[in-house]
Amino acid sequence: MPRTAETASFQFNHTMIRVRDPEVSLKFYTEIIGMDLLSKKDMGDFTLYFLAFDHGQNYKAMSEEEREKARFAREGVLELTHNHGTEKDESFAGYASGNSDPGRGFGHIAITVNDVEEACARFEQLGVQFKKRPQDGKMRHIAFILDPDGYWIEVLSNRLEL
Amino acid sequence: MPRTAETASFQFNHTMIRVRDPEVSLKFYTEIIGMDLLSKKDMGDFTLYFLAFDHGQNYKAMSEEEREKARFAREGVLELTHNHGTEKDESFAGYASGNSDPGRGFGHIAITVNDVEEACARFEQLGVQFKKRPQDGKMRHIAFILDPDGYWIEVLSNRLEL
Repeated sequence: MPRTAETASFQFNHTMIRVRDPEVSLKFYTEIIGMDLLSKKDMGDFTLYFLAFDHGQNYKAMSEEEREKARFAREGVLELTHNHGTEKDESFAGYASGNSDPGRGFGHIAITVNDVEEACARFEQLGVQFKKRPQDGKMRHIAFILDPDGYWIEVLSNRLEL
Repeated sequence: MPRTAETASFQFNHTMIRVRDPEVSLKFYTEIIGMDLLSKKDMGDFTLYFLAFDHGQNYKAMSEEEREKARFAREGVLELTHNHGTEKDESFAGYASGNSDPGRGFGHIAITVNDVEEACARFEQLGVQFKKRPQDGKMRHIAFILDPDGYWIEVLSNRLEL
């Protein structure tokens, strides 16, 4: 039951972060995290990439137009914004992850998985940087990995664990 | 079809932002945006609030424990972190939205709706601050509102519109 009639159609469609190098970030979010690229939009001096997990939607079988339409009709989409040139600008300081000053505000995105240990062992093998491994600190059931721009990605079980 | 077998169980579970005053933010995200509060977790000197849209889950009929379990099993959850004291700290400078320097990186979350004009007319009536009204600029089919901490929320149609 939706909270209010006026908001019954509302969905938390996507979260947008800026990335320095789309080649590096797309490889990370598809091959390591496992999302599919649904749409690429060239906007002049910047390009937008929309990704999401395929849970039966079968994006690979869709036409480009169908995928573009599909990205509006679901939750859990990640939008990557690439401002052209950052990837080869050696003076570019990089983007703020949101978790240190100045710029604290945004925290992280989170990926739920069946098995946190197994997922993290694979991330380790793939050379992913960790902010917190499952065995670090008190919270053994969660981990934080870093994406190529240093944004935090929480890795947690898809079942409540105490 | 999932991108890789190892990531078949992965979901983009949640996005976390810090908020200054949970009373103000919870009112905004439930009454204005239309999300339900699924879970509140007291963590000592900070508290976490997990919200999501109810699209048939019927959270209101669930026990507290069932709602807590349910928040791990879906996408599109918003996590609000409240570091105790910010709401009454007059020297607190506020959180970075991610969209200006220093601290640029995070961009926005996005809500899809059936009717952008209608949704924005209601936001206007409710006194919501706009970053961009539908009629501002070239992109007439989208708007950006601001949440109580100044984070950008894109409002767009749930159908592809050209």
